Amino acid sequence: MSWLQKEIALSEKKRGFHLVTQEIVARLPELQQYKVGLAHVFIMHTSASLTLNENADPTVRGDFERHFNKMVPENAPYYVHTYEGPDDMPAHIKASLLGSSVTVPIQNGRFCLGTWQGIYLCEHRDRARSRRLVVTLQGDRA
Amino acid sequence: MSWLQKEIALSEKKRGFHLVTQEIVARLPELQQYKVGLAHVFIMHTSASLTLNENADPTVRGDFERHFNKMVPENAPYYVHTYEGPDDMPAHIKASLLGSSVTVPIQNGRFCLGTWQGIYLCEHRDRARSRRLVVTLQGDRA
Amino acid sequence: MSWLQKEIALSEKKRGFHLVTQEIVARLPELQQYKVGLAHVFIMHTSASLTLNENADPTVRGDFERHFNKMVPENAPYYVHTYEGPDDMPAHIKASLLGSSVTVPIQNGRFCLGTWQGIYLCEHRDRARSRRLVVTLQGDRA
Repeated sequence: MSWLQKEIALSEKKRGFHLVTQEIVARLPELQQYKVGLAHVFIMHTSASLTLNENADPTVRGDFERHFNKMVPENAPYYVHTYEGPDDMPAHIKASLLGSSVTVPIQNGRFCLGTWQGIYLCEHRDRARSRRLVVTLQGDRA
Repeated sequence: MSWLQKEIALSEKKRGFHLVTQEIVARLPELQQYKVGLAHVFIMHTSASLTLNENADPTVRGDFERHFNKMVPENAPYYVHTYEGPDDMPAHIKASLLGSSVTVPIQNGRFCLGTWQGIYLCEHRDRARSRRLVVTLQGDRA
Repeated sequence: MSWLQKEIALSEKKRGFHLVTQEIVARLPELQQYKVGLAHVFIMHTSASLTLNENADPTVRGDFERHFNKMVPENAPYYVHTYEGPDDMPAHIKASLLGSSVTVPIQNGRFCLGTWQGIYLCEHRDRARSRRLVVTLQGDRA
């Protein structure tokens, strides 16, 4: 049994849904040492989130952005927390709907994802910032 | 400390929300060997999802289906990813709203769920398919 | 590697979103012994939920309540499961949208949360009850 915990700073992304599986894996050479285990990928923010979804067609990510903007609109008349801009309160709500972490099985040194699954960084703010992740790997090494 | 990771294929379900706790437990005799730990149940798809909810009244599952169909409608005018049918893009969005995994405490060889909690397979596509899960058990054996 | 699993009963809260990080940490003196690991915080109910979000301005929690009440309304004409009151079926749906657990990295005896992150108990029922959590800590001790 072996633990690895490290912080990864993702490059700044514009508002929207972004496939980041490769950006994460490239920063985790240690993953290859785990034969069986779990990877916990956690985002240390409340206005961006992580989810797993379709990894092939970029229009899926565009449709996510368009749907979430309708389901959680800006300038809803009932928002009180408005002083950080119209994108702020929707960003918090979207972040909780999607979640602050994904947990992925590790199998033979790789993320055990379905053929069509990838990790999305969901950037809900207008002004892009680098986003900090804490990745925790645990499992049996080869 | 002991790890078990296995794939489970759930039988095909029609579109909707289905209670699958027993179908999963029946395929996990190894669960009984864990005194304390965690079970990670992961679905390898992007158009079906897993969640925990009420395990008694089937009308709850029907209301889930009706509500999600309204909150994430088919044929929204802003969808671009439409070539796989009207149920496809809503299926992806519903899957991320509900999530691709549940993590359940293990206590004395059993899932430590509340009295009313059960695991739902949420099938968001019209055409039923078998769905693949990867279950990862970890913990101390008895 | 060391496991700790304990049940925590949170005090009754009124319907809404409540910051409970300190209430949980105060009940987990054992957390300080873990150098690196993960904390799984699980709620044993289907009409209340857990999420991570902004820990500073209480109006954020108010806006969450107002938004979820609009996105998942009471008395929707398509609800069949209505005999437990108008707040019951929305409570189940909200619980699955937000989720029944959060997993937080442990670092040097503390939850490794971002500056603005806190744990919310999301109470979706009108009649307050105490809510039971099962907390599972795992990791390497100092």
